[in-house]
Amino acid sequence: MNKRMAAEFFGTLWLVLGGCGSAVLAATFPGVGIGLHGVSLAFGLTVLTMAYAIGPISGCHLNPAVTLGLAVGGRFSFKDVPGYWLAQVLGAVAASALLYVIATGNGSAIGGFASNGFGDHSPGKYGLGAAFLTEVVMTFFFLMVILGSTAKKAAPGFAPIAIGLCLTLIHLISIPVTNTSVNPARSTGPALFVGGWALSQLWLFWVAPLIGAALAGTLFPKLEE
Amino acid sequence: MNKRMAAEFFGTLWLVLGGCGSAVLAATFPGVGIGLHGVSLAFGLTVLTMAYAIGPISGCHLNPAVTLGLAVGGRFSFKDVPGYWLAQVLGAVAASALLYVIATGNGSAIGGFASNGFGDHSPGKYGLGAAFLTEVVMTFFFLMVILGSTAKKAAPGFAPIAIGLCLTLIHLISIPVTNTSVNPARSTGPALFVGGWALSQLWLFWVAPLIGAALAGTLFPKLEE
Amino acid sequence: MNKRMAAEFFGTLWLVLGGCGSAVLAATFPGVGIGLHGVSLAFGLTVLTMAYAIGPISGCHLNPAVTLGLAVGGRFSFKDVPGYWLAQVLGAVAASALLYVIATGNGSAIGGFASNGFGDHSPGKYGLGAAFLTEVVMTFFFLMVILGSTAKKAAPGFAPIAIGLCLTLIHLISIPVTNTSVNPARSTGPALFVGGWALSQLWLFWVAPLIGAALAGTLFPKLEE
Amino acid sequence: MNKRMAAEFFGTLWLVLGGCGSAVLAATFPGVGIGLHGVSLAFGLTVLTMAYAIGPISGCHLNPAVTLGLAVGGRFSFKDVPGYWLAQVLGAVAASALLYVIATGNGSAIGGFASNGFGDHSPGKYGLGAAFLTEVVMTFFFLMVILGSTAKKAAPGFAPIAIGLCLTLIHLISIPVTNTSVNPARSTGPALFVGGWALSQLWLFWVAPLIGAALAGTLFPKLEE
Repeated sequence: MNKRMAAEFFGTLWLVLGGCGSAVLAATFPGVGIGLHGVSLAFGLTVLTMAYAIGPISGCHLNPAVTLGLAVGGRFSFKDVPGYWLAQVLGAVAASALLYVIATGNGSAIGGFASNGFGDHSPGKYGLGAAFLTEVVMTFFFLMVILGSTAKKAAPGFAPIAIGLCLTLIHLISIPVTNTSVNPARSTGPALFVGGWALSQLWLFWVAPLIGAALAGTLFPKLEE
Repeated sequence: MNKRMAAEFFGTLWLVLGGCGSAVLAATFPGVGIGLHGVSLAFGLTVLTMAYAIGPISGCHLNPAVTLGLAVGGRFSFKDVPGYWLAQVLGAVAASALLYVIATGNGSAIGGFASNGFGDHSPGKYGLGAAFLTEVVMTFFFLMVILGSTAKKAAPGFAPIAIGLCLTLIHLISIPVTNTSVNPARSTGPALFVGGWALSQLWLFWVAPLIGAALAGTLFPKLEE
Repeated sequence: MNKRMAAEFFGTLWLVLGGCGSAVLAATFPGVGIGLHGVSLAFGLTVLTMAYAIGPISGCHLNPAVTLGLAVGGRFSFKDVPGYWLAQVLGAVAASALLYVIATGNGSAIGGFASNGFGDHSPGKYGLGAAFLTEVVMTFFFLMVILGSTAKKAAPGFAPIAIGLCLTLIHLISIPVTNTSVNPARSTGPALFVGGWALSQLWLFWVAPLIGAALAGTLFPKLEE
Repeated sequence: MNKRMAAEFFGTLWLVLGGCGSAVLAATFPGVGIGLHGVSLAFGLTVLTMAYAIGPISGCHLNPAVTLGLAVGGRFSFKDVPGYWLAQVLGAVAASALLYVIATGNGSAIGGFASNGFGDHSPGKYGLGAAFLTEVVMTFFFLMVILGSTAKKAAPGFAPIAIGLCLTLIHLISIPVTNTSVNPARSTGPALFVGGWALSQLWLFWVAPLIGAALAGTLFPKLEE
């Protein structure tokens, strides 16, 4: 379990450092910034790369909602959920600390630090209802793709591509609504450094993704023959 | 058949929610919008991700033209076409309803809602003839890639990459002409919410893709040895 | 041979329609255009998609320089080169005719029509020497990747990804220099519709890619053990 | 060893020509430039394409830090390190010479020539500390992905995708900080042509990547069961 937790720690560190790092450092770089498209690709590639690297060690969840959805779907033991959640949150916090040091290395303030939010703190000012619905639906389909692409009938070796690029797709759709979470650990890291509104809205980015993941974990096994 | 139809319903829901959702929510986001390139990637990734997830369940058509082309090409039973078409259209309508709730969640109107059109309703003001030709040709090559990459001689496991990225390519070329359909279900969902011109032009986005798909279904078997 | 030539015809048609079509129709679309990045992706995806679709039929060359390089490298019969070249050029011309009808469907003139050029007709005004060197070197590495990724020791099934994305990479580098050819057929189709300077500069986009391809066909076998 | 060194020479030439070439020639092309996103993709695709082409010949390191990290991790012989380093640096210098000829082919000066730097020479003016930390951490995770995706348990054939797209991801994050090195050879080539500040800051782009790679080479074997 220790090696698996260490893998989840480093993997989630990479997810948050790469995804939020690209957003904080490169999204709005003058003239040649990568924009929401580049940030979407970065988030997806953190998962794609780590899934090939540590998938055989820990399964490469990197996300408390993924861990829950896999447990509900019968693919992961409920008793290992707390250990995975702890490793994932610690990895996200470590990533945010590293990113804090780098991002302030040119004298900049951290600003929103890629935190997730709704209402006044949604990038496009989407309200609580739209934000909640978006996070539930996006996480639901994320888990559908994870459960399907790692099923026994699935082609071996391709799941990291399907899952990583699904996270890219989810960001291409939903960054304007909530800055895209679908991952409570990813939301927790930056919120601890921003504080205030980011912490007070953090509940949604635990509750909604976990609901979406549990729904998919319940439905998908019924679709399989 | 029920599980296969359920898979087509959820898959087409994801195609329309992801593709049209990225267009409506993120394409023109100020300063960092994903543009036509990002929307093209999103459409393709809906198919790539779902093909890995539900391919083993339903074949992951997500598109009445694909279902027809596979039937004409001898890969799918004609008697199952109506059930697939029904599930696909219902999925597209459900996606449009979800997207309506999200997109209006910041008080915005839905505008064109990613509907397909020609003439005054073509993004680049292309006329009926160019639009019809474009939809026939693009769907023809989409089905050529689908039939080829899923043929017996094809390398196993790679078809979702070929097919998904083919849909990305088709959008990179043709969004300016018709907003790109090649999929009657994808056109029907948004048109029901926009009404008016979108409904009155909807016929083209059923007729042209079905013609293109049937042509490919007729030709491809002649190319195979 | 007829089926293989038909496959090369349709494949090269798709390469030129997709690559040049994305450039002509979508690259500079106001506000949301796909730019050189999107055009680069489109060119690469035409090859990736067709390689999965018709690779088992014709080998999916789609390019006279590729056909020559494979022959020099001992992977293709010299006696079949003329038939492949003919099919490729006819496919490129058919694609340009289709694109002409679509692109003028909103009353626009065709402009440069994605033709290749140097000097005053280079996008970035690069001279003959830089253009010639660029086309030789880019085609050389294109063939190195083709010969390597289809060698006996290579992992089966992945060559279309390597080769398609290599063409994307080549465009990401060199569109500013020559509009990127590395493919005499791709250069010939649009030049016939533009005439004048495009025809008078066409020689470079036959000579330089063929030299680069022949060099790689000579070198690569010496690197293999 | 000669064939392996030749493969490393051509592979590293392609990495520097493609990555730095896209940055110098296409990143800021007026109106349709590929930006940091396109440059990131180009760097990654040089590795993806070469890994499929020459992976079976030399292992396709293309980077002194990768060679060191693999040696520390027990996957490569220390006695072959100097030969690989030499071939890689020579390839990078040859690439820079080729790029010099092309880039000046329209009368332009070479400017920064995609050199790596910190402080006043960081694209976003990040200081020495942030630059050093960024290069160590990015190279560390690059090697984690390389070691993981080429481990015995890993799915065969997919490593070039994971490794190439990891380099894309690293650039999406860190170009604003150091112009992204994680590869001492890639830094050395352009620095020799720019001279001055680029040479005086070159030490960091040898020391930091080598430290990051050695750390990953030490850690990863402990994570494997």
